[in-house]
This record gives sequence, structure tokens and C-alpha cells, in this order.
Amino acid sequence: MRIDILTVLPEMIDGLINCSILKRAQEKGLAQIYLHNLRDYTSNKWRRVDDYPFGGEAGMVMQIEPIDKAISALKSEREYDEVIYTSPDGKTFNQPMANTLSLTKNLIILCGHYKGIDYRIREHLITKEISIGDYVLTGGELAAAVMADAIVRLIPGVIGDEQSALSDSFQDNLLAPPVYTRPADYKGWKVPEVLLSGHQHKIDEWRLQQAQERTARLRPDLLEK
Amino acid sequence: MRIDILTVLPEMIDGLINCSILKRAQEKGLAQIYLHNLRDYTSNKWRRVDDYPFGGEAGMVMQIEPIDKAISALKSEREYDEVIYTSPDGKTFNQPMANTLSLTKNLIILCGHYKGIDYRIREHLITKEISIGDYVLTGGELAAAVMADAIVRLIPGVIGDEQSALSDSFQDNLLAPPVYTRPADYKGWKVPEVLLSGHQHKIDEWRLQQAQERTARLRPDLLEK
Repeated sequence: MRIDILTVLPEMIDGLINCSILKRAQEKGLAQIYLHNLRDYTSNKWRRVDDYPFGGEAGMVMQIEPIDKAISALKSEREYDEVIYTSPDGKTFNQPMANTLSLTKNLIILCGHYKGIDYRIREHLITKEISIGDYVLTGGELAAAVMADAIVRLIPGVIGDEQSALSDSFQDNLLAPPVYTRPADYKGWKVPEVLLSGHQHKIDEWRLQQAQERTARLRPDLLEK
Repeated sequence: MRIDILTVLPEMIDGLINCSILKRAQEKGLAQIYLHNLRDYTSNKWRRVDDYPFGGEAGMVMQIEPIDKAISALKSEREYDEVIYTSPDGKTFNQPMANTLSLTKNLIILCGHYKGIDYRIREHLITKEISIGDYVLTGGELAAAVMADAIVRLIPGVIGDEQSALSDSFQDNLLAPPVYTRPADYKGWKVPEVLLSGHQHKIDEWRLQQAQERTARLRPDLLEK
């Protein structure tokens, strides 16, 4: 799959998309991630992408023209499944959404910045508004990186051990059970005996019970889904 | 304030914490953000930080020793308000939590990786588990960066225009109203006339009404809080 990220701060996530899982996915030819600097689509000599809001409010607003030009240029080259805008008032990103988006072919993610983007962009050019959570970030770059990471790791072949992704939290609406590794005793803090028993059936039972108990205690809302 | 981030992949977010708002906050002396490589706290010559899970499951688990050593080293130098672990089953991060954390002095954020961390770390060393949302990331690095960004931008003086932070989404449980900037007419897509009227009282009224309408339509849950 291909993800095109439109941003005024490509340097903010440049290192990140060429690191870890996203790097591996690109090296394996399973994903391509491109950063586009919106300033390359401006027509003024200062490469300005923002201006004061109409109606006199604090903060700056990203202008429609460079964003329209950037999206049009990409769309003229291939079809896109979605043009996503990262916004705190979008639909809240979750694992089922990551699953769905991991099956698409081409995505554009527009990173908001400053006070926001001219609302006409949202009305005419954006197909999906997504928020990664109920908090405000300086810009959409981190949100785009979060989505790219959550989506790309679900593409078959990207993470080495697919079993590992299947047993992640949320895939079955249960939190993951506790995990332990060596040493079995650290400063007197011990690993539960059942895990050392070698009795796989009992271990599986314990894990399911722990997952259910932890979910009921910490995230009862997940059990209602 | 000071944030110490413990990670096995410092290079993933190294660029990011020295960019944009986090860079500015550090230059102004309002925040210090340090990345610590957990491999520097290993005692084996391969600098391994993970091992196979007890009970035979897929994936690798981060070991207790290097994490305990790293946290102890930091704690010997200063007092920490919280030792946070980024985990999908933690309490979901939101704006009130960002507000509270922005008032603290010293924070440690431990980034999970692989299948997770040895559960004893969570029982004995962590004071707060935070999730940035109901999705699974390759590692906690992006979650730590998201939290650092959301928290640091709330420190007075970090963003230039404080008025701008106050009118952000979530600060009053309302989504922000639409914003517009030049040109007033782009390809026939027009800015609402009231914003061009110069009548500040009417503009303020329109904004509040838009914020309420958008919140009721898109995020009715916010109005119940």
C-alpha cells in the first residue's frame, strides 16, 4: 500500500517513517510512505501556507490553495481510497479502523497545523476525518505517524511473527494477559507458578482468565462491544 | 518541566523531540526532554533487553533488569512525579490528563516494545499506565512523543499565542468552530458571510452556535461530561 502524507513540517516525522516497522515494510516492498512539503505547492515567494482567520480570532489558518494543488497533483497520478484529515473532531481512530485502512491501496493523510485548516478543504476535498484521541497536538504530523504505524504493521508480512499481532490487545476486544520473562525471581518478585509449570492447557486457561479479569477491571466498556 | 523517555529505539523519536514545539520549549528553557537508550543499562555483552516469554507465547518480552536500573539511576538524581508506562490497556489519555501532567515537574515515560514488558515492572515500578487510544502501535515511542507534545504545549509561554490554546477543541468540552482564511472565494467555494461582516458580536454568536452544533452532531458524548 501507499501512504502520502501532506505536511508543513516533513522534518518532524522524516526520521520516524524511515525507522523500525515502517522502514522494514518499505524495504520489503509492502508499503511506500511519502512525505510532501505543502510549501512546495505555494505560489507566493515566501512559501507561506497560512493566513489570518476571517472574523478576527487568535491563531493562523492553513490556506486552501496549496492543499488543493497538492491533493490534485497526487490524484492525477493514481486513485486514492481516502483523503484523510487528522483532526481532534474527527472519528476516533481504533483497531477496527486500522484493520479496514490496512486493506486499502492508496491513502492521503493531510496533517493540520496552527489553528486548523480552511473549512472549505474539509467540505470539498477530505473524505474522512480521523482523530487519534481526545487531546490537542501541535500538529497532525504525530497523528499521521501513529496511523501509519498502526495500519502498516497489520499488512501481512510486515511483522515477523504474525501470531504476535493476532494476540495483541483489542483484536478480540480483550486486553492482553500479563507477560513475564527471565529471571523467574528478581529481587524476590516472582513469576506466577503456572507459567513455569509447562502445562500448556493450564497456562492457556490462566491467560484467558487474566485477560478477562483485566478487561473487566480496567476497560469494562470493551466487553460491551 | 523535565521528561525522561526510556526506549530501545531512541533514533525513532530523536528528530521529533528536537523539532517544532518541543524544540522551542527546550530553547526557551521551559522543558527538558531526554532520551535514554535502555541498552545502556544491560549487563550482557549483546546489549539484549528482551527474552522469550515464560509459558511459551509468540513475541518477545522486555526484561525487568535494564528497566529497573534505568529508573533507579534517574530516581537517585531527582524526585519524579510519575513513572508512566505507555500501554494499550492503560487509562486513555485525554486533555484533562494533559493539563494535570503539564503541572508536574519530573516525569519518566517508559516506552513498551515487542510483546510487552515483564509484568513485574508494571506492578512494582510504574505509577501510571497511559494509552493514547484503542489501537496497537509497534512501540511506545510514538505514544511518548504524543504525550510529550500534548503536555509541553500547555506550559505557559511555550506556544506564542496563549489565547490560541484556550480556544482549542476539548478545553471547554466543545469542538472548535470552523475557521476560514483568504481567499474569501476559491473556485466558487465561499466563506460564510457573517465572518466578513465585521460585526464581532454576531461572529461570536455564530462561532458558539457552530461549536455547539458540531459537537452535538459529531461528539454528543462530550456534552454529557
